[in-house]
Amino acid sequence: MAVLVVGSVALDTVVTPFGKADEALGGSATYFSLAASYFDHPRLVAVVGEDFPEEHKQTLRRCNVDTEGLEVRAGKTFRWAGKYGFDLNQRETLSTHLNVFEHFHPRLPGNYRESEYVFLGNIHPRLQLEVLDQVSSPVFVACDTMNFWIENERETLCEVIKRVDAIVLNDSEARELACEPNLAKAARNIQELGCLKVIIKKGEHGCLFFTPHSHFSAPAYPLESVYDPTGAGDSFAGGFMGYLARHGKLDELSIRRAIIYGSVLASFTVERFGVQRLLGLSEPEVLARYKEFLEITRFDS
Amino acid sequence: MAVLVVGSVALDTVVTPFGKADEALGGSATYFSLAASYFDHPRLVAVVGEDFPEEHKQTLRRCNVDTEGLEVRAGKTFRWAGKYGFDLNQRETLSTHLNVFEHFHPRLPGNYRESEYVFLGNIHPRLQLEVLDQVSSPVFVACDTMNFWIENERETLCEVIKRVDAIVLNDSEARELACEPNLAKAARNIQELGCLKVIIKKGEHGCLFFTPHSHFSAPAYPLESVYDPTGAGDSFAGGFMGYLARHGKLDELSIRRAIIYGSVLASFTVERFGVQRLLGLSEPEVLARYKEFLEITRFDS
Repeated sequence: MAVLVVGSVALDTVVTPFGKADEALGGSATYFSLAASYFDHPRLVAVVGEDFPEEHKQTLRRCNVDTEGLEVRAGKTFRWAGKYGFDLNQRETLSTHLNVFEHFHPRLPGNYRESEYVFLGNIHPRLQLEVLDQVSSPVFVACDTMNFWIENERETLCEVIKRVDAIVLNDSEARELACEPNLAKAARNIQELGCLKVIIKKGEHGCLFFTPHSHFSAPAYPLESVYDPTGAGDSFAGGFMGYLARHGKLDELSIRRAIIYGSVLASFTVERFGVQRLLGLSEPEVLARYKEFLEITRFDS
Repeated sequence: MAVLVVGSVALDTVVTPFGKADEALGGSATYFSLAASYFDHPRLVAVVGEDFPEEHKQTLRRCNVDTEGLEVRAGKTFRWAGKYGFDLNQRETLSTHLNVFEHFHPRLPGNYRESEYVFLGNIHPRLQLEVLDQVSSPVFVACDTMNFWIENERETLCEVIKRVDAIVLNDSEARELACEPNLAKAARNIQELGCLKVIIKKGEHGCLFFTPHSHFSAPAYPLESVYDPTGAGDSFAGGFMGYLARHGKLDELSIRRAIIYGSVLASFTVERFGVQRLLGLSEPEVLARYKEFLEITRFDS
């Protein structure tokens, strides 16, 4: 089944203690699509400017990403620059130029409207609602968000949360959205907002998945060297949604497996700069790492 | 097989936002023994003063703890007072009166010297070595330590580490001992000190276990209410060693299961003040929670 993502496509400048990337292909929807492409033919809804390199479009298409929904508008592409110190959990944004992204309104090509799996990347919750209004009968909808929308657009964000099946957010966002430091309680509070499946990413500590009746704890992959954490969360979401769309099942175990595949894709992303590792990745590598996740959690038999 | 623990038996005064306990039964060896007693008849090596309440000794004996090695010396029992804020990960020590513990030299009763499973609780590494010199042919020795010994007694501590099979420490201690922020790399560095099994506790994020050839990630139990974190780490060690001693196997899966049983006991300890929850715990409750750990980590079948 088809997975659709709406989010940003950007040119990223990233500095880490291990190197630098200049105006590289980035953005949440880019990482999502490349990760999802290991399972599906993801449909990308985003906007870029006229300066967006043709080479990046070709990269996306070569990787099995459907770019019909990638709108090109007069103006410049969204640019983001950030810096990581030795503690790669702490990121400093050096500059953000929204450019054409500032006036973005997602418009879905006709065939995209039938998409069964929909991921609302981290954009203004009003735009997330606009996407929901354009899809006819999705089977599974998940959304991402960030502290900025939690603090400034809580009401609209709550409308989104009511209309999605799952929310994917990191631990600090979950605590802030729920006004509750304990993550298990925070998940309950978020469920009370109307979204029953809550996935909380904890970076190097793995990830938690709560339904009203179950709890799942996924480990992190024990990486000894993280080169660039940019896009890890979006790759997680892409692997997660891509796996679900490919297998077309939404029972508890399938969702748990999808979370592990999300963790697998995220663990690869951070091994190199930008999207580099995702581009060179093979399906056997993905499967082998999934099996490693099985091995590192096994204790009973 | 028999498990022996050396550590502190203390009278603890603890304040949390949820209540207060005054001069309650505490100390690392107490929590260890009570947790281990669900699997074994643990041998306790520690010292108390003449003021140590007879009632506490009876509590330990009633719980299947062998107190022959609990020395009573002229003077007062070790007293510790601490305070937790709403962030229960942060603890403030209000006072420490070592009293008879200050001049403690562990002396093992004759039959203790044959103990197969030995846990060197968090005491001066010189005393840990004294215990090792008194046991004749242990099958499995593990040790705990803390930042104070890492900073002030590194050389002696390294001697201990060379002589144990496993080290159990928390994430900040592992980073400090290894001079390395990445936990996977820190574990490698510690293995190079001579101890091949490294267990790193991460509190609410679970626990990691490294051997030279494998990695295990154990989840934390999703507690919505933690009342008093005191003794969680010692209960973990007690459940871990107690399970190993009971089953007498040291293969990879047995150690992983022991880590889960350690996590089970720790998760119960923090549900009430001090040792209260450990005292009232039943074997079926322990087994049921172990099965919950299985359930919260299952994703493949």
